[in-house]
Amino acid sequence: MNEKYMLRAIELAKKGIGKVNPNPLVGAVIVKEDRIIGEGYHKKYGDLHAERHAFANLTERAEGAEMYVTLEPCCHFGKQPPCTEAIIEHHIKRVYVGSDDPNELVAGKGIGILRDAGIEVVPHVLKKECDALNPVFFHYITTGRPYVVMKYAMTIDGKIACETGESKWVTGEAARQRVQERRNELSGIMVGIGTVLTDNPNLTCRIPEGRNPVRIVCDSSLRIPFDCNLVRTAETVRTIVATISSDLRKKRELEMRGVEVICCKDKDGRVDLQDLMLALGNDKIDGILLEGGSSLNNSALKSGIVDRIEVYVAPKIFAGSGKYTPVRGIGAGTPSEAYFLGKPDVERIGNDLLLSYDVLGRKRAVLL
Amino acid sequence: MNEKYMLRAIELAKKGIGKVNPNPLVGAVIVKEDRIIGEGYHKKYGDLHAERHAFANLTERAEGAEMYVTLEPCCHFGKQPPCTEAIIEHHIKRVYVGSDDPNELVAGKGIGILRDAGIEVVPHVLKKECDALNPVFFHYITTGRPYVVMKYAMTIDGKIACETGESKWVTGEAARQRVQERRNELSGIMVGIGTVLTDNPNLTCRIPEGRNPVRIVCDSSLRIPFDCNLVRTAETVRTIVATISSDLRKKRELEMRGVEVICCKDKDGRVDLQDLMLALGNDKIDGILLEGGSSLNNSALKSGIVDRIEVYVAPKIFAGSGKYTPVRGIGAGTPSEAYFLGKPDVERIGNDLLLSYDVLGRKRAVLL
Repeated sequence: MNEKYMLRAIELAKKGIGKVNPNPLVGAVIVKEDRIIGEGYHKKYGDLHAERHAFANLTERAEGAEMYVTLEPCCHFGKQPPCTEAIIEHHIKRVYVGSDDPNELVAGKGIGILRDAGIEVVPHVLKKECDALNPVFFHYITTGRPYVVMKYAMTIDGKIACETGESKWVTGEAARQRVQERRNELSGIMVGIGTVLTDNPNLTCRIPEGRNPVRIVCDSSLRIPFDCNLVRTAETVRTIVATISSDLRKKRELEMRGVEVICCKDKDGRVDLQDLMLALGNDKIDGILLEGGSSLNNSALKSGIVDRIEVYVAPKIFAGSGKYTPVRGIGAGTPSEAYFLGKPDVERIGNDLLLSYDVLGRKRAVLL
Repeated sequence: MNEKYMLRAIELAKKGIGKVNPNPLVGAVIVKEDRIIGEGYHKKYGDLHAERHAFANLTERAEGAEMYVTLEPCCHFGKQPPCTEAIIEHHIKRVYVGSDDPNELVAGKGIGILRDAGIEVVPHVLKKECDALNPVFFHYITTGRPYVVMKYAMTIDGKIACETGESKWVTGEAARQRVQERRNELSGIMVGIGTVLTDNPNLTCRIPEGRNPVRIVCDSSLRIPFDCNLVRTAETVRTIVATISSDLRKKRELEMRGVEVICCKDKDGRVDLQDLMLALGNDKIDGILLEGGSSLNNSALKSGIVDRIEVYVAPKIFAGSGKYTPVRGIGAGTPSEAYFLGKPDVERIGNDLLLSYDVLGRKRAVLL
């Protein structure tokens, strides 16, 4: 076993970023006598799986070779035939697997089938690194709902904008570029109607060859103006408005402009976010970047849809009243009523920090 | 040269934490044929310097030995005779020095005297690590004012308390313990009168064998009550109240209770913090932990007295209006009017993070 081949498989898997959703990122490397004789990755939703892509790229016969694959090989017919069959047919001797596949249709069965065929399987090779490829997939496949990443940028005194509302820019260029990458990685992006009315954003991905996320606006009263950037470009970039309004005329007019309107359940006079997530999950949207303002941030946390919080922290102090705070709403009365998060991952991006936290509890914030 | 001896000298220097102010922390190791034959450190203000302490601990003659010392040896008469003399008298062959001494009375002269005596001097050995021992001293010796560390604890959504004002506790036990260590390290601790009236704190150091910092209250109108914890314990723990009030009677009554009252210049109807820092510096207070609330934090930043900002960030979200924000006051109108900080040092303490920033510019925040 040589970890360098699994690291190569991980590297390959990442080439599928933004293109395979709602499938997982997977990479595979076939090794014979310490030489790579084939490698591949899942390139695009509907295309060959990584293992079959690696076999398609073989430079010599794979008989007796070893395979490194970042995720347990599938054993069911989906868009593609099971990979386990291909591995058996090619007489692979040993398979090193990174992550388990939590997909109920696979979940250990893939490994079982290989072992039954006399192939040695070594699971959990660089498992942590392989798992880190697919938090979105793992969440989506087990819950049917999108993995929601709440993102905001603030100064170290907790301000997301100046007292005047001015917020261009809190963080540096590199951090803003990272947000663009997240837009490319995640299938959807969601904001509240307040952000649309104030900032008139495009919410597109400005990375060359990047993929635009599906744009989702929470707009309980269907206030979105026809002349905003989102509606004006809805024919070219998929745009969804989620509402509880019964204004059928406005709904129809939006649809005529290419906007999809989802009528959600009402929760306390607003869009029921759990209901919306279910609808988006059914629509194969597996991940959402929540770039809402502080009100939507609060509703999202309260409804329990947030899985991850990514906070960009700028080395600046704005001072001021705290009007532009990252999460508004009715605050905790005592510290024990806080939303509790996990230990942060810390990354330096330029002069800024990116602090990323799991929201504790699988589907909702834990109120201890 | 062997860095391990300098690391040992650094370790020794730290034993003086909380006891040598306003002198620097210094450690020294004397080495002969790869054996330590003497080591020492500056133990207490007024006591032997590290070099002389190391000579006092010699296990054999130092002739021809090498010395590792974390700070350039002094060459002037202070409370102690110059260390350069002792090094020359003991016929040390070579001296490895960590930090330069920015003290105008030394500043390169110590090294010069040794070289003139035929001793080889190698400066800047583990300079960064040695410099990290003495940010307080370097600041104090060059400016005559205390090094001010603004400290606050907040949730990742920028709240220093719940909407109700409840703040016990934002961070975990390990982070709070670290604050106690800072109280032991820094000579002074400062709060605003608001904190005294609301929390009635003791501001003592709760570390066993720790040293209490001098307690300083910014109290422009001399509102401090006689029955608060600070006044009640002023006879045992040094307590200073800084004011611009002319209420001589209250001043006298406080002094009768052991409180020192400093009458400062008036700046916009409040204590002129620069003037106060000058007075405290003259009083040999070389460092201050600013544990003031958000108003004092703002005044301190505005007046330019803050050198370092230490923010404890808890993995929690309180949500709410932002009333309890770390820095209040009149906020920046645009992001370019922010206070700009340096790249943070990041440390994990339990589940919390400690993010530490230099305030850019030596004596005041830079308004770019």
